[in-house]
Amino acid sequence: MIVVMDLEVGEKELQAVERVLHEYGYSCHLIRGEKRLVIGAVGAKQTEVPPALETMPGVEKVLQVMQPFKLVSREVKPDDTVVEAGTLRVGGGVVSVLAGPCAVESRTQLLDAARAVKAFGATALRGGAFKPRTSPYAFQGLLEEGLVYLQEAREKTGLAVVTEVINPVDVELVAETADVVQIGARNMQNFPLLKEVGQLRKPVLLKRGLSATVEEWLMAAEYIMSEGNYQVILCERGIRTFETYTRNTLDVSAIVLAKQLSHLPVIADPSHAGGHWRLVKPLALASLAAGADGLIVEVHPDPARALCDGKQSLTPEHFAELMVYVEKFLPVLGKKLWHGGVK
Amino acid sequence: MIVVMDLEVGEKELQAVERVLHEYGYSCHLIRGEKRLVIGAVGAKQTEVPPALETMPGVEKVLQVMQPFKLVSREVKPDDTVVEAGTLRVGGGVVSVLAGPCAVESRTQLLDAARAVKAFGATALRGGAFKPRTSPYAFQGLLEEGLVYLQEAREKTGLAVVTEVINPVDVELVAETADVVQIGARNMQNFPLLKEVGQLRKPVLLKRGLSATVEEWLMAAEYIMSEGNYQVILCERGIRTFETYTRNTLDVSAIVLAKQLSHLPVIADPSHAGGHWRLVKPLALASLAAGADGLIVEVHPDPARALCDGKQSLTPEHFAELMVYVEKFLPVLGKKLWHGGVK
Amino acid sequence: MIVVMDLEVGEKELQAVERVLHEYGYSCHLIRGEKRLVIGAVGAKQTEVPPALETMPGVEKVLQVMQPFKLVSREVKPDDTVVEAGTLRVGGGVVSVLAGPCAVESRTQLLDAARAVKAFGATALRGGAFKPRTSPYAFQGLLEEGLVYLQEAREKTGLAVVTEVINPVDVELVAETADVVQIGARNMQNFPLLKEVGQLRKPVLLKRGLSATVEEWLMAAEYIMSEGNYQVILCERGIRTFETYTRNTLDVSAIVLAKQLSHLPVIADPSHAGGHWRLVKPLALASLAAGADGLIVEVHPDPARALCDGKQSLTPEHFAELMVYVEKFLPVLGKKLWHGGVK
Amino acid sequence: MIVVMDLEVGEKELQAVERVLHEYGYSCHLIRGEKRLVIGAVGAKQTEVPPALETMPGVEKVLQVMQPFKLVSREVKPDDTVVEAGTLRVGGGVVSVLAGPCAVESRTQLLDAARAVKAFGATALRGGAFKPRTSPYAFQGLLEEGLVYLQEAREKTGLAVVTEVINPVDVELVAETADVVQIGARNMQNFPLLKEVGQLRKPVLLKRGLSATVEEWLMAAEYIMSEGNYQVILCERGIRTFETYTRNTLDVSAIVLAKQLSHLPVIADPSHAGGHWRLVKPLALASLAAGADGLIVEVHPDPARALCDGKQSLTPEHFAELMVYVEKFLPVLGKKLWHGGVK
Repeated sequence: MIVVMDLEVGEKELQAVERVLHEYGYSCHLIRGEKRLVIGAVGAKQTEVPPALETMPGVEKVLQVMQPFKLVSREVKPDDTVVEAGTLRVGGGVVSVLAGPCAVESRTQLLDAARAVKAFGATALRGGAFKPRTSPYAFQGLLEEGLVYLQEAREKTGLAVVTEVINPVDVELVAETADVVQIGARNMQNFPLLKEVGQLRKPVLLKRGLSATVEEWLMAAEYIMSEGNYQVILCERGIRTFETYTRNTLDVSAIVLAKQLSHLPVIADPSHAGGHWRLVKPLALASLAAGADGLIVEVHPDPARALCDGKQSLTPEHFAELMVYVEKFLPVLGKKLWHGGVK
Repeated sequence: MIVVMDLEVGEKELQAVERVLHEYGYSCHLIRGEKRLVIGAVGAKQTEVPPALETMPGVEKVLQVMQPFKLVSREVKPDDTVVEAGTLRVGGGVVSVLAGPCAVESRTQLLDAARAVKAFGATALRGGAFKPRTSPYAFQGLLEEGLVYLQEAREKTGLAVVTEVINPVDVELVAETADVVQIGARNMQNFPLLKEVGQLRKPVLLKRGLSATVEEWLMAAEYIMSEGNYQVILCERGIRTFETYTRNTLDVSAIVLAKQLSHLPVIADPSHAGGHWRLVKPLALASLAAGADGLIVEVHPDPARALCDGKQSLTPEHFAELMVYVEKFLPVLGKKLWHGGVK
Repeated sequence: MIVVMDLEVGEKELQAVERVLHEYGYSCHLIRGEKRLVIGAVGAKQTEVPPALETMPGVEKVLQVMQPFKLVSREVKPDDTVVEAGTLRVGGGVVSVLAGPCAVESRTQLLDAARAVKAFGATALRGGAFKPRTSPYAFQGLLEEGLVYLQEAREKTGLAVVTEVINPVDVELVAETADVVQIGARNMQNFPLLKEVGQLRKPVLLKRGLSATVEEWLMAAEYIMSEGNYQVILCERGIRTFETYTRNTLDVSAIVLAKQLSHLPVIADPSHAGGHWRLVKPLALASLAAGADGLIVEVHPDPARALCDGKQSLTPEHFAELMVYVEKFLPVLGKKLWHGGVK
Repeated sequence: MIVVMDLEVGEKELQAVERVLHEYGYSCHLIRGEKRLVIGAVGAKQTEVPPALETMPGVEKVLQVMQPFKLVSREVKPDDTVVEAGTLRVGGGVVSVLAGPCAVESRTQLLDAARAVKAFGATALRGGAFKPRTSPYAFQGLLEEGLVYLQEAREKTGLAVVTEVINPVDVELVAETADVVQIGARNMQNFPLLKEVGQLRKPVLLKRGLSATVEEWLMAAEYIMSEGNYQVILCERGIRTFETYTRNTLDVSAIVLAKQLSHLPVIADPSHAGGHWRLVKPLALASLAAGADGLIVEVHPDPARALCDGKQSLTPEHFAELMVYVEKFLPVLGKKLWHGGVK
C-alpha cells in the first residue's frame, strides 16, 4: 500500500499516519521523490486498510500496489532513483562504467588495472576479493588481503570500489572497504545475505540470478529495500539457456522491463553475459541502446595470465577503444558518459 | 573444402578443377567475392582431397572449413553478402526496415498498412497469407486471396513483398508474388521446405527457430545455399526461455555471432521477440547496436482489431516515431537507413 | 463444445443435431466412447450455442470444453483411446514396445534388426527412410528404397512398421508402407504435414517438439484429429534444456499430464531423450512408472557402424535384457507386455 | 589424484604417504570402501605427482581422477555410500521416505504431521523452521521456535529430523536439532554455507539448484566433502524449463547420472518438482524406477490451510496410499522400504 502525502506535510501529521499504519501491522518506508512524498507501507497481510486513513491530515490518497514488489516499483516512485558512491553515479541520464579484473590477484595486478581503467574513463573499480567458484579447488580469492589492495587502489586512483560479498558474516568487513557492495548472480536469492546488506547504508549492486525471472530479481531488490537500504543498482548479466556458443544469453528485454517496472538504475555486464572478450563491445552497445544506465566490464592487464575469466577480459587497450566508442555513442540516446565530476 | 582460385582464372581451368572435384564426390559452388573467387566443394565425405588439386592451373590454395556450415561460413566468403529484391536491399552498410501486419486480413487492412509503412520509410511490406497457428481453430490466413492483395499492395506502393510459405507444394505459388520468401521459426528445420526454397532464385528470409542454437540456424541456411540459392537473410526473433514477462527472449548475442561466423545479412524481429508493442523500440535499437542489418516490424492500422498478434503490433503513428528514432540513431553506428533509391 | 447424445439416439435425430451445428459454423466429430456418444463441435467462433440445441431429441446435455484442445481432451472422451495397427496395440492397459534402427541403412541391416527385435518381444519395427538431419551433407535416408525394405521386413516378420514422413507430398507414399506414420519432433508444428496425416485413416505417432509445451503438443494432436483422424499416439522424447550431459531432458511429468488431460495413448522414447544407450533402461522404466503406454527404442545390429545415432542405440543383446526387465516390471503397475496376440 | 593403498597397510606407512602428499600441496581424504582403501588427494594444482609415490610401501597404484569432482566420484569409491542418521538410512539397496510439511507452522500442525507420516512408514520428518521465500513479506518460518517443535516431534515419534539451514551463522544451531541438515535449491552454490556444513559430522541433504547442471551439483557436494564431511545425500527436485504446466521439470536422467558418476545416495522430491499433489505419486514412482534411493514428500494435516506450498502437499490419507503403493512397487526393483529397524 502507498500512502501519498501532501509534500508540505508537517512532521507531526506524518508521525500520526505512521503510528496508525504500525498499529495495523505495517512497516513504513518514507520515500521522497521530486514531486511527491509517499509512505510505502508493507507487511505480510496487506489487504486491510486502516479505516480513517484517507481522511487523516496530510494524506492525499491511498493506493494498493498491484505488483508483488512494492518499494522497488515505479508505481510507488515514478522518478528514477540515482545512486551515488564516491566518484560513481548511476542513473539520472548519465552512463557510468565500472571496470576492473574479475578477481584481485595481486597488488601489482590490481593497481595496474585500476590506473588503466581510470585513465580511460571508468569511475569505479571492480575486483573480487571473495570469489564464489564452482570448484572448491579453484582460486577462491585473496580474501582480506584483497580488500587491502582495493583500499590502496581507491586511495591511489580515487575510483569508487565495487566488490562482492558472499557471506553474511563478512558484510561489515567488506563494506568498510567497498563503496558499492556486490551481490553475485549465485546469491541473488541468498536471503540472509540480502537482509544483511539491507542493513547497510551503502549502495548494493544486485546481479540477476542466472535463471531468475525479472519478477524474482525485483523481489530480491525488495528484500534489500524492505530492510531500509534504498540504494540498489540492478545488473543484468545474462541468463542460462540452451545456447552453447555463449557463456550466458544477455537478456536486453530484462533491462527494458526492469526500467519500466522499477525506478532503480540498471546496468549490464557484457563480459559475463557473452563469456568472450570479442562479444563485449556489441553487447555493451546493445545494452545501452536498450536503456542501461551503465556497464560493468572485466579488464585485466594480462588476460592470458588471469586466474579467472581471462577469456572474457578486455586488455587495457581494448577497454580504451570501447570507451571511445561508448562516449561517441551516448549522445544519440540523449545521455552522456559520467566522468566523476560535478553533476 | 574451399578451393581458392586465381581471380583471373580462365573458364577452361575452372571447369577442369570442378570436374576433378565431381569425380571425388563433391558438389561445387562458385562464390565470387570482391577480392577472391572460390569454389565451395561440399559433400558427405569431405575428408579426401584429390591429390593433384593444389597443383592444378588456377588453384591458389585449398582449405578445409572447420565449421559444420560451409557455404554460409565467413571462412569461405570474407566479405558481406548483400541481398537485393526490388526496393529492398539488406546488408552492406545500410539498415532496411520491413514492416506490415502479422497477417493479411483484408484488402483494405493491407493497403492501409502498406501505404503507412511506405510513407514512414519501410522498403518492404510484410504480411502473412499462409499462417502457421498453434490452434487448428484459429484464423489460418486468407491463403491465395492474401497473395492477390499483396500483389496489389506492391503495385500500388512499389514496396517489395515478404511473405511466408509453410508447405513445399506452395513454394512456387508464393514465390510468384513474393519478392522475399519467408521461412518461419517453426519451420526452421523443415528440411523439405528449405530444399524447395533453395531451388528458387529469389531471396529467402530465414527466421531462427524458437529453440535453435546459432549453429543449427546456420545449418538451416546451409540447406538453402547447398541447393544453389545464395540469397539468404537471417532473422533473429527471440528464443524460448523460462522468462514469462516477454513472449520470447531476444538474443542479441546471436546477431553478433551470426555476423561473425557468416557473411549473410542478419535482421531482427523485435515484435515477436518481446511480444508487446511497448518493447519494440528499445529492442529494435538494441538489435541495431548489436550489428543487425535491418528490422522486421509488425504494424497494423488498428491493432486492437487484429486477427493475430495485435498486442505486439505498432500503430502507424508509433511506427512513424520508431523510424524517426532509427534514422537519427544509425549514423553513430556508421550506417544509414536504406530508402530504396540508388545506393 | 461437446454435445452429449443419448446412446440409443437414432440416425435421423443425430443428423438433425449435426445440421443445426453446421448452420452455426461448427464442424462435427462423432466420438463413441464405451459409455457415451458425443458430438465434438469445433470451430473458430465457439462461443455461440444454437438456442434450441439442448431441447432437441437425443441431446442429453451441452458442455463447453475449457481447454484449448477439444477432441484431444479427456473432458470430451473420458475413456482411454486404444490405437491398433497390425500386430501393434497401444493403450488400454497393455505396454507395447516399438523398436528398430534410427535409419534404414541397408536391406541386411534392417532385416537383421527386425528379426532381433521381433525375437525379443517388440510388436512394431521402427526405422526411418526419410531422415530429417541438421546438416544437408549428412546421410538423408534411403528414401523410397528404404520403404521397400520396410515392406519386406513386415512381410518377413509380421511386425507393424512405423516410419517417419517429413514432406506433405510424401504422406500417401509413406502411408502405403507404414502401419503407423511418424511425425518427428522437428515437425510437431509443421501444420500442413499435420493436416495431411489428419486425412489418413491410419495411426499417427506424434513426437513432442523439442521445446514444445504440453499444451502445444496436444494442440498439434488436435490438428490431426480435427481433420478426422482419431488414431493418434503421443510420444515424449525429451526436451531441450541447459543440461549438457544428456542429449535432451526426458520430461516424465509430460507423460503424466498428457495422460490426465487427454484420452490418447502416450509412449516414451528413452533413446532420443538420454542420447546414450546406458541411459535407455532406467529412462524406459521411469517412463513406464509415470504411466507410459509403451516405448520406442533404437536397436541396431551393429551400433558402432550406424549411420546415425549409434551412440544411443542398443545392441540386440542389450535390447533382450531390457525386454526381460520390462516384462518383469509391468505387473506391479497392473499392466502387461503386449505380445501381438489376441487381447 | 587417488592413491590406492594396500588394505592391510600399517598406520606408519599411511602417514608417510600422507606426509609426502602434504609436501606437494595436497590435502588428504582417507576413504575406506569395502574392497579398498584410498587416499583422495586434492588440491588446486593437481598435476604434479610426487616422483617416488608409486614405490612407497603400502601404495598399490596412483590414479588421476578425470572428472572435476574427485571425492564425490565413483572412480574414487566404487561402492555405494550409505548415510545413516537416527532412524533414517539412505542408500545401500533400501528406499527411505522422508516426509512432513513444507514449513513448521505450529506445534500442533507439526506433531500431527509427524505422527501421520510415522504411522504410514516415513523414517524421517521434514519441516522448515528457516524458510527461504521469494517475497520478504511472505511467512519466513518460525525460526528457533520451529526448531523446538522439531525437537519435540523427534522425541515423541522417534523420527529423524531433516530441516533446512540458510545462513552459515545458524549451522551450529540448526545442527543441534537436525539429524540431517538440508541445503535448499537456492543455496546449492552458496559456498560459505557449503563449507560450513562441510565442518559438521552430520549428514547433509543437498538439493540440486533449479538451473544447475549435474556437474555443478556434484561440485557442490565436493565442497562439502572437501571439508571432511562425507555424509552427503543428493536430492533431485526439478529444474527450471519453459514448461508452465508444472512448477519445475523433474529430471529423472539426473538421478541416473548422479548414481553412475558418484557413489553418493540420491533421493527425489516429487512435491517440488511437479508442484501439484496429483503429480506426486507418478513422479515418485518414476524417480524410484530411475534408481532413486528415497523420496522426500510434502505432507500437511490440512493442505488447504498451509502457509506455504499447500497445493503440492499430500493429505495424510493420500500419503498413506502412496506408501502402500511404494512398498508394493519396490521388490520389482530389488529394493525394499526402509522401516527404521535393523538392516
